[in-house]
Order: sequence, then structure tokens, then C-alpha cells
Amino acid sequence: MRALPQPVQNLIDAFSRLPGIGPKTAARLTFYLLKEKSDIATDLAEALSNLNAETDYCQQCHNITLSGQALCEVCADSRRDDTLICVVEEPSDVIAIERTGVFNGKYHVLLGVLSPIEGIGPEQIKFQSLLERLQKEPVREVIIATNPTMEGDATALYLQKHIAPLGIKVSRLARGLPVGGDIEYADQNTLQRALSGRQSME
Amino acid sequence: MRALPQPVQNLIDAFSRLPGIGPKTAARLTFYLLKEKSDIATDLAEALSNLNAETDYCQQCHNITLSGQALCEVCADSRRDDTLICVVEEPSDVIAIERTGVFNGKYHVLLGVLSPIEGIGPEQIKFQSLLERLQKEPVREVIIATNPTMEGDATALYLQKHIAPLGIKVSRLARGLPVGGDIEYADQNTLQRALSGRQSME
Repeated sequence: MRALPQPVQNLIDAFSRLPGIGPKTAARLTFYLLKEKSDIATDLAEALSNLNAETDYCQQCHNITLSGQALCEVCADSRRDDTLICVVEEPSDVIAIERTGVFNGKYHVLLGVLSPIEGIGPEQIKFQSLLERLQKEPVREVIIATNPTMEGDATALYLQKHIAPLGIKVSRLARGLPVGGDIEYADQNTLQRALSGRQSME
Repeated sequence: MRALPQPVQNLIDAFSRLPGIGPKTAARLTFYLLKEKSDIATDLAEALSNLNAETDYCQQCHNITLSGQALCEVCADSRRDDTLICVVEEPSDVIAIERTGVFNGKYHVLLGVLSPIEGIGPEQIKFQSLLERLQKEPVREVIIATNPTMEGDATALYLQKHIAPLGIKVSRLARGLPVGGDIEYADQNTLQRALSGRQSME
């Protein structure tokens, strides 16, 4: 037996293309599905086929929406404050912020982040459509919620530089110690940010 | 936006049913596929659908084979020594042993391991068909290659008890220090096995 049966090898190869899944994990998942002989493989296959067919990007904020709906649930909700726009990198960030339950504005998903090393400039992310929204909509404040990484910081600065001249307030999520964190184990940069951004206790 | 679009949530749920993949990893994989919009999701869906449709178990050794083929590649190979049978727990163990390139006998896959706690007895694994093979085929030696775990050990003892009376030699894979391992960090049980199973240097 020189090799695995082709259908088994095909599935291992397909799993291996997912991020964080190496050949060993891919083989483990495949043999698990083979052993179970249950509906897991079928359900997963169906969910995968439906993913691209049934989802689309919101034409306004580029968040994920159901196919055939021009606007996502947030953009279509008239009860939400459209003078406040929170700019995030990915649709998954929208979910994370929605989960907090404290934000009632709208979103703008960049679908990426500026990264000169990877050749991603303002034209490769949804920057132009953000500017168009800001000129059209009665926006009062833009909250930049890009990741606290080098690329996220660079993107935030770039956005700030282009949005501030429009007379719109630009803010950014606070950086500091994570809740439940431990000062002893906080990295140097986080602790520096927490010190320089200290808040007065009134 | 109270929840994720249904097709997205469905895929997260399906991924979460795989072993070792929690809701967070499932969400990460799903958003990766959403972002890539490439053929990865399609390829994976196809490979999953084909897995159960195109594979089957060998009627002789219960290894994985292509649908429509009664015998797997090893069983069908007349150049392999059919007086030597290596008993393993799972089809993935066959692959591991084949990879060594030093075994030229046939296999028998139990598709499980004895585990009284989980209610798995000799009837739930391919034990009866092993006995039938041993009565039918000219087997000289059975090499038991179950895992070096409590269940694997119990299964090995059980097999030995039933096979030895047939006048067939029963052996088991050697236990000892793994190659490249470090005596200092070897666990107590492994070191005990390595001592009691020490080999004379001739």
C-alpha cells in the first residue's frame, strides 16, 4: 500500500489548506470522519457549499449579509444611530463588537488592513467607499476599531489623516490592560500604553 | 444584528462538531473561507461528499478501500506474506506502519479497542472476523500493534488469550524509549518497560 486511497488523500489535502491545520491534524479529522460514518461529513459539505452561495457583502458597509439583500441587518435597522460609524477590519470584528451590546451606531468593514509588505494599499481595502459614505451621510464621529497591531495602527493613522479634514471627529478604541489581566505578565508595550493613557478617577 | 447570518452560523456549527475544533476555531475557519472567496470551500465540500461515497472497508482486513473493491490494496497484493498478520486499532495505524517500509505481511484492523467503560466489548470490534481469518488462512504469527494505552494493553491480552490456543505465535510491538528521546524526561512507565525489556548487545 504505497499511498492512501485517493478520496481520503483528497480530503486530507483539502483540510490542510485551512489556516492552522497541518497535515497531521488534517489526517486526524479525516480518519475521524471515516470512522464516524455519520452525517457530520454530509452536514459540513452542505454548509460549505451554501456558504458562498447564500452570503454576500452589504453594499453599504461590506459586512456579511444574506444573498439577495443589498443591506446587512445593521445598515437596514433604522433604529441605529447613523451619525456614528465604527470602522473595523473584518466581519468577525463586527460580531465581537455587537456582542458587547454597548454600540448602537453603524459599521464600515474595510475587508483588510493596510500592509505595504503584502502590497495592500488604500485601493485594496474599502477605503474609498468609506470616504463616499462620510460625504453622503450625516456622520458625527468615526470610531476606528482596527486591531492593535502595526498594520492596524498604520491604517488608523491613515484614516485619521483623511477623515479629520472633513470636520468629523475621529476616535480610536482605548488601549490598556485587558480586564482580568495581570500587570506582572503584561507586555511592555501594553503597559506603556496603559500608563500614557491613564484615566483620572473622579 | 442579534446573530450571524444563518449560512455562516451553520458552517461554524458544522466545524465545531469535529474533534479538537471549538467554537472559536470554527469561527476563525469560517471567516477565513468567507474572506478568501476562493475554491477552498468548494474543494473541501466536494472532498467531504466523496469521502463516504467513494470509500468502503476491506471485506477481509477492514482497512479502508475504494468503493466497489472488496479487498484493499494490501490484501489484494499477492506478493505480501499472508502468514504474518499485524493487528491494529484503526486504518490510520496501517498507514503509520506502512510508512516504516519494514513490514511485508498483511493487516487486520479492529476498528476499535476493548473499553468496558464505553461499553465496547469483543462484539463491537472486528474480533470474530480475525478468529475466522486465523482458522482459514495459513497464519504463522500475529503481531499485535494496538496502542500502548490501558485499552490497547487490555485488547492485546484478550487477543493473546484467544489466539495462542490456536497454536499461532503472538507477539507485540516493543515498548521502550522512543528514538531521539531523553532518559531524563522519559515517564516512569516507559522507563520501567525499557528496563524490563532490555535487549542484550551481541
